[in-house]
Amino acid sequence: MTHDGADNRPIGVFDSGLGGLTVVRELRRRAPGETIVYLGDSARVPYGTKSLATVRRFAREDAAFLLRFDPKLIVVACNTASAAAVDMLAETLPVDVVDVIRPGAAAALAATDGRIGVIATESTVASGAYQRALTAADAAREVLAAACPLLVPIVEEGRDEDDPIVLHVLSDYLRDMQRFRPEALVLGCTHYPLLARAIGKLMGPKVSLISSAAATAEAVCRRLVASGQIGDGSGALQCYTTDDAARFAALGRRFGGCDVGTVRTVGTDELERPAAAAAGDTWENAS
Amino acid sequence: MTHDGADNRPIGVFDSGLGGLTVVRELRRRAPGETIVYLGDSARVPYGTKSLATVRRFAREDAAFLLRFDPKLIVVACNTASAAAVDMLAETLPVDVVDVIRPGAAAALAATDGRIGVIATESTVASGAYQRALTAADAAREVLAAACPLLVPIVEEGRDEDDPIVLHVLSDYLRDMQRFRPEALVLGCTHYPLLARAIGKLMGPKVSLISSAAATAEAVCRRLVASGQIGDGSGALQCYTTDDAARFAALGRRFGGCDVGTVRTVGTDELERPAAAAAGDTWENAS
Repeated sequence: MTHDGADNRPIGVFDSGLGGLTVVRELRRRAPGETIVYLGDSARVPYGTKSLATVRRFAREDAAFLLRFDPKLIVVACNTASAAAVDMLAETLPVDVVDVIRPGAAAALAATDGRIGVIATESTVASGAYQRALTAADAAREVLAAACPLLVPIVEEGRDEDDPIVLHVLSDYLRDMQRFRPEALVLGCTHYPLLARAIGKLMGPKVSLISSAAATAEAVCRRLVASGQIGDGSGALQCYTTDDAARFAALGRRFGGCDVGTVRTVGTDELERPAAAAAGDTWENAS
Repeated sequence: MTHDGADNRPIGVFDSGLGGLTVVRELRRRAPGETIVYLGDSARVPYGTKSLATVRRFAREDAAFLLRFDPKLIVVACNTASAAAVDMLAETLPVDVVDVIRPGAAAALAATDGRIGVIATESTVASGAYQRALTAADAAREVLAAACPLLVPIVEEGRDEDDPIVLHVLSDYLRDMQRFRPEALVLGCTHYPLLARAIGKLMGPKVSLISSAAATAEAVCRRLVASGQIGDGSGALQCYTTDDAARFAALGRRFGGCDVGTVRTVGTDELERPAAAAAGDTWENAS
């Protein structure tokens, strides 16, 4: 697996849909020699309104699919799945796991000594994962978390940041947050960076917006450097989706910031039948 | 199966989530002696933004689950699944299948000789199913269909009809529809009847709002009368969901208009492994 000092096994990344491509974008910028296999579970998106038990099962199946490619590390590039399943995955998977919540929380703590706000999906907020990650590092820290259930469908509908409905919905969700006057605001869902300009306008220029995508990519690079596992490959990206490949490729550009290459479909029925699918499905013959 | 002239096998009803309970409500009102088994696929909701191929597979799995209860008829109480899969289901299932689109279209045609509008999910509108059902009966009929992707998440978020965001989003979606000036407007998604008052306010009192839920329940009753399959049982309702049972029961009240009784969870992994699950799973031992 390690050749000439470089570990060119892929990094596996999964998300409930397209949002995790914002993490892939930051990762490719910082680690251009890494091969990445991405799974977006578009057939079952969103995760943020589903129960903890269901999200855990989905996360286990997504990670099991990525294991077929012999990854050196798996990134849970979905806040909801990170909140629900990262401890379970870290305990059960045979490879390192990086989530998006701890890096996002650490970046917020580093950005300010003051109040921290978090916006995220219903289920991420209800899990208390950000609140725990922030107060574990600093028990006295004032934290306010707000659920914003409509933002994911708004981003997926393709509405522009200047759209009056986007501003109206954001104003509604951010009303209490504006009163709380945080010094940093964590965008606790990988869809939210696509609304960063509008969120920044409503919160004002003094509030630092923390994207967990960038913080997560940095955490991955630090981990690979520390373990001597940096790759020096071609930086290939192979995307899989559980729904339509053409739609994923078309919308993926917006999230990934560039062409996401060839996209393949893997049905959720195949994900849910792990035993049957293991035969010979490796990075080499799948790409 | 038929005892003393009555057919007391259950009616199977499925939907992507809770919306189909609006059909169940109308059905129980008209046919109080019918036993109903309902499956809401809340773990994979929504269907309206997924591809045709994926929705077809989900619909096939949902119907296969209902077949375990030996139903006399299956209702596809989801517009998206009706648009994508009703012909495939009617050809392959061993029982009668009633969808929500043909009854809704027929009710609109009966309500007016003039222009007909349809509002529905992205994928129902893209399928052209309502447009085809309406113009097949009357080729000269003017029809306008509009996709309203945010309405399902808005209803599922529990926003009130008077909420300024609901009115803002509806005004945006209905702008072209108002100009089209239909005489009847089909609410082509089972979630939309929960916004009927707000939609009525925007469209004006002269526009008849057509709920496919009521029209579908009537179609089911007509079918059962014609085939001599009316039941005279206790009218029991047994609900299954692929996600959290407690959440389904709590939200189900809003859609079903009454208590939905005990709700059981069946995982999508079980739906996707039909062979393994068949053993002894019947109405009797499941209830």
